[in-house]
Amino acid sequence: MTSPALLNAVKIVLVGTSHPGNIGGVARAMKNMGLSQLCLVAPRAQFPHPEADLRSSGATDLLEQAQIFERLEDAISDCTLVAGTSARSRNLPWPLINPNQLAGRLHEELRHQQHRVALVFGREDRGLSNEELHLCHLHVHIPCNPDFSSLNLAAAVQVLSYELRMACVGQTTDPEQPFGTEWDVPFADGKALELFFEHLEQTLIEIDFHNPDNPRQLMSRLRRLYLRARPDAMEINMLRGILTQTQKAARTPHGNN
Amino acid sequence: MTSPALLNAVKIVLVGTSHPGNIGGVARAMKNMGLSQLCLVAPRAQFPHPEADLRSSGATDLLEQAQIFERLEDAISDCTLVAGTSARSRNLPWPLINPNQLAGRLHEELRHQQHRVALVFGREDRGLSNEELHLCHLHVHIPCNPDFSSLNLAAAVQVLSYELRMACVGQTTDPEQPFGTEWDVPFADGKALELFFEHLEQTLIEIDFHNPDNPRQLMSRLRRLYLRARPDAMEINMLRGILTQTQKAARTPHGNN
Repeated sequence: MTSPALLNAVKIVLVGTSHPGNIGGVARAMKNMGLSQLCLVAPRAQFPHPEADLRSSGATDLLEQAQIFERLEDAISDCTLVAGTSARSRNLPWPLINPNQLAGRLHEELRHQQHRVALVFGREDRGLSNEELHLCHLHVHIPCNPDFSSLNLAAAVQVLSYELRMACVGQTTDPEQPFGTEWDVPFADGKALELFFEHLEQTLIEIDFHNPDNPRQLMSRLRRLYLRARPDAMEINMLRGILTQTQKAARTPHGNN
Repeated sequence: MTSPALLNAVKIVLVGTSHPGNIGGVARAMKNMGLSQLCLVAPRAQFPHPEADLRSSGATDLLEQAQIFERLEDAISDCTLVAGTSARSRNLPWPLINPNQLAGRLHEELRHQQHRVALVFGREDRGLSNEELHLCHLHVHIPCNPDFSSLNLAAAVQVLSYELRMACVGQTTDPEQPFGTEWDVPFADGKALELFFEHLEQTLIEIDFHNPDNPRQLMSRLRRLYLRARPDAMEINMLRGILTQTQKAARTPHGNN
């Protein structure tokens, strides 16, 4: 099934945007492509702002309905699949997909009722932090000239929204649908995942595997691993059951040593 | 053959542009995607202009080298294939292709030495005239929301340039390598994975989470989860370190119960 209505379940999340004009440009790009949900996380720009209205070129309805959050976690807490935009170089390499592949993944996700997706864009000057990227299942990189690689924020939103519209409304020539089609259990949402990672970290501290004062990228690596697998709700329950039992065992000797 | 060098044979032609900022935005979008040749036909904007420089965000070299023509015919006189951007409604229907299809056609053309192509964009308020479109071999339409269909000029250039870069430089990731080409650690081999699953099962038995006489699909579900993530060798070492430490903690009380 392809339908413009699928695009209503897509959130565009802008983190720490500095320029009100860019927020307006993003709203215009979104509305051109049929997207409607704009979220701002801790905007550095004044908002609302006349420059945003001007650059939106009539997409003021999106600006008026924009939601504002303090933390990225809150903006994506109801989303089942979250993609963050990323440049190439990161300390800890993470799978990077291109916008066309992303659109295929998101379209697949959107075909399930009650699934919601978010596309997260970083600051004009330095993108998303590693911590923010580690909240995302997918990292997308827009191919660009390596010597001049900083896209305008609205331009980046335009490219990803365009690919998403192509995937959801048709006309894409890309047959690739890399992810499974008929999953039987709903995927874990952002909140369930965060509670799992908190529980995991706490347990690793209790068994003396993890020292928060000397983290050695441990939690980053574990996040990367589990987010790549995209656990469903039952799997998260199972993993948390293991953690609870591990804590219990660590607190109570079994006498089999 | 795919190569960034092919993009040097692509001209972006702007007809009758009104706003100098848009010319700058176009230059930025072009340079981001590795394009370099900008032509202006009868610009209505003042040019050069500080607003163009500002919006180009450093792509001033493209602005300085921009060629200016009075007539579209002259701007495209050395081009072997010309594509014009078009809205849907025209008196005389003309075959419309989408940006992805266009990129394929242009890439095919560019693979021939001495072939040069042009992408022609119209005025902010009313696009290209029918006479101008009739100078073009191909008409391309960017899919958009029919109720809000006027893209910003730089955004339109961004989408077509992006598709062209995708076609000429190739994908950032190989579909056969779903986790990206720049992974820094080899994937775990079958033996390492089996040793991990044995270790996992043994540990789950020791913490009383798993009863082999009543397995409830536990190991099958865990296999499905971890194999989906496709762990690399370092990740498997990390997971096994956690298991070893869990066993140790379960055998030795921490006294914090």
